[in-house]
Amino acid sequence: MPRNAFYIGLAGFGTVGSGLAKVLAMNRAWVKRRTGRDMVIKTVADLHKDKESSAQAIGASFTTDSRDLIRDPEIDVVVELIGGTNAARDLIKDALLAGKHAVTANKALLAEHGTELFALAAKAGLHLGYEASVAGGIPLVQTFKGSLAGNRTEKVLGILNGTSNFILTEMTVRGMDFKAALKLAQEKGYAEADPTLDVEGVDAAHKLVLLIRLAFGKDFPLSGLTITGISKVEPMDIHFAREFGYRIKLIAQAGEVNGKIEAGVFPALVHETDLLAAVHGSFNAVRLTGNAGPILLHGYGAGDLPTGSAVLADIMAVARGREPDNTGFVDPDLPRAQIMDPLECEYRHYFRFVVADRPGVMAGISAAMAGRGISIAQAVQKGDESAENVPIVFLTHAAPAGAVQAVLKEIDAMDFILAPTVHYRIL
Amino acid sequence: MPRNAFYIGLAGFGTVGSGLAKVLAMNRAWVKRRTGRDMVIKTVADLHKDKESSAQAIGASFTTDSRDLIRDPEIDVVVELIGGTNAARDLIKDALLAGKHAVTANKALLAEHGTELFALAAKAGLHLGYEASVAGGIPLVQTFKGSLAGNRTEKVLGILNGTSNFILTEMTVRGMDFKAALKLAQEKGYAEADPTLDVEGVDAAHKLVLLIRLAFGKDFPLSGLTITGISKVEPMDIHFAREFGYRIKLIAQAGEVNGKIEAGVFPALVHETDLLAAVHGSFNAVRLTGNAGPILLHGYGAGDLPTGSAVLADIMAVARGREPDNTGFVDPDLPRAQIMDPLECEYRHYFRFVVADRPGVMAGISAAMAGRGISIAQAVQKGDESAENVPIVFLTHAAPAGAVQAVLKEIDAMDFILAPTVHYRIL
Repeated sequence: MPRNAFYIGLAGFGTVGSGLAKVLAMNRAWVKRRTGRDMVIKTVADLHKDKESSAQAIGASFTTDSRDLIRDPEIDVVVELIGGTNAARDLIKDALLAGKHAVTANKALLAEHGTELFALAAKAGLHLGYEASVAGGIPLVQTFKGSLAGNRTEKVLGILNGTSNFILTEMTVRGMDFKAALKLAQEKGYAEADPTLDVEGVDAAHKLVLLIRLAFGKDFPLSGLTITGISKVEPMDIHFAREFGYRIKLIAQAGEVNGKIEAGVFPALVHETDLLAAVHGSFNAVRLTGNAGPILLHGYGAGDLPTGSAVLADIMAVARGREPDNTGFVDPDLPRAQIMDPLECEYRHYFRFVVADRPGVMAGISAAMAGRGISIAQAVQKGDESAENVPIVFLTHAAPAGAVQAVLKEIDAMDFILAPTVHYRIL
Repeated sequence: MPRNAFYIGLAGFGTVGSGLAKVLAMNRAWVKRRTGRDMVIKTVADLHKDKESSAQAIGASFTTDSRDLIRDPEIDVVVELIGGTNAARDLIKDALLAGKHAVTANKALLAEHGTELFALAAKAGLHLGYEASVAGGIPLVQTFKGSLAGNRTEKVLGILNGTSNFILTEMTVRGMDFKAALKLAQEKGYAEADPTLDVEGVDAAHKLVLLIRLAFGKDFPLSGLTITGISKVEPMDIHFAREFGYRIKLIAQAGEVNGKIEAGVFPALVHETDLLAAVHGSFNAVRLTGNAGPILLHGYGAGDLPTGSAVLADIMAVARGREPDNTGFVDPDLPRAQIMDPLECEYRHYFRFVVADRPGVMAGISAAMAGRGISIAQAVQKGDESAENVPIVFLTHAAPAGAVQAVLKEIDAMDFILAPTVHYRIL
């Protein structure tokens, strides 16, 4: 074994784990220049016995029992890449209780059990690194605590799920419907066999909880998020949005107003001149506004090398002997966020009404909207004479969500409305 | 004075200094949550006596002698915001020699004297922070050492000068010539009375030297950079570039190939689908490629609050008692970069030939280019019958700079060439 070595115990040898091993092998000298240590993956733990030969190939010993990583007194840091929230939680807890630093890429775990785990790490004075858990290779976690430490964020929003963004991009560029684009994403390895967590916005919501912690220093419960995915987005709305100069993107967003936090995941119209509209395929991007002005960070949210190098950054912070600064705040017990009533929030809106082609329709809808104080910015009605149901699309000026909810209930009860009205926020 | 206070000595109370004071006043509670300290600007030093009342307004004492900051045993960090490279260098040297941490936003200083100053800081075990020195509010300096510590950069490039980008944007959007756009930039406060450092690429070059240090861990001498500014960019070339789908941007770029570094500042054609083409007005952006994939960081490169919050981030790193990690490497004595011969570098090129309207011209140019192995990708010739000189524009495939230099010499000697050929690289 090399002198001055720093030993990694790696639990889970899938995409991210092998990415870590690759980056470490490529950058060995670089890592030593930065840390002064020879970094070694000493042991790989994986439930799948067939990973043993891959572990041997990188010079690591192998075990199917991740507890072996904790038991080995030489191992300096336990890297949790097994996923899920049960075994992963137990592994990190046990590692911290045994006095070992921990690094994870597990956003679901930290969204659900972060409060408990950060408290445990703080009590033990240990690192709990999670650079790779938000938007993979995009520098966010240490960046919020470092370069942006002096910036007070007002709003953070982004495209945090590459699978959904790939699907929406294909729907936009090729005119595919959701099912066909999902199938393509699965064929290309961008979507899993069960794509629910990705396309229903849950994965983006996990990341948003972590971003809220970093940007606002508050614990926001996952259950407090309004989450809408993309599985109901129709090609027709992508088409109309484009006519008005917009793209539809799955947006995760959180903002702080008067001490309250409004946060959610939802498909939204993004104007084509906005850099977020140019985030294509499986790329991710995050924009934050605050004292430092609008800042956009764009890159890969997944992939072996991007995510592996993010995990490595955390390990290097441990190896350099830095004081842990896991949450970025002296008191790790973050205040619980006050959640803003979603009905108070003001947005511009896109409505698509499906109506019978007869006189008085436009007048009826317009009058209802005027009655609720919702002002129409742009409108288009396109029908052909043979169609029985006609789409009418309105883009509104900013209106409170409460008024929007009420007017939709009112309009959807009108007898010329043939299907529930489609509506999206406009960023 | 508050208990547990952390005292800042501020030298230079201009835009950035007052930005720092504003951000600190707005974010006092936030800064305390992150550092555990009450942060106080104790003394402002400025040569201009008329700043005294502004200093008093933020509760600071005032002096015209910046050495008073060093002499005060209570002051924890000296923040150098006076600019220039002589007095600033002496101030930081003296502060470090007196055992005080230093923070600066001075890119020219660190580009010219960084090696000396980082060595001094390392010897003394003190912080020399410079987050604000590259692209203002964009999180770069601590980010390279933190979130991106495990990433090996292959290439870093960007739009690092807001003044030049504003001028090029106005020339593109409004069809102005350079002089008119410069005048507008001066009227709006984006350009100084003497704009040389900005429009001739020197400011971008200073920042590039710092980026090379961060991204590649090497000392690159400012004198080793090829620097071309924007003062000779003509509206006609912006127009032709647009016809081919490109924007002209002032690009600072450095790449490492086989251990050698190629670096320079130059106007270049950027394709309109590239996010860099959408960096408008006074915004800056940096793209890096490496293990983490392409990453783009976009934001304000200047301005009181963005730059002030970047300076504050450095001060907070000091206040948290972090170990200094100024260069990001254990050995602060960085190896000197081997500079790649610019003639070895391959790029695609844009040529605009100014020719007499007569037979054989296209044949002559094409033959010369074929003779040097330079392959033409796209071409356009637009003349009207009355014009005596006609522009011919070629976009080439990748060709070595040496061959390009040789062919331009050959072509410019041809008798139908009426003016020196204009040429730009294509990103």
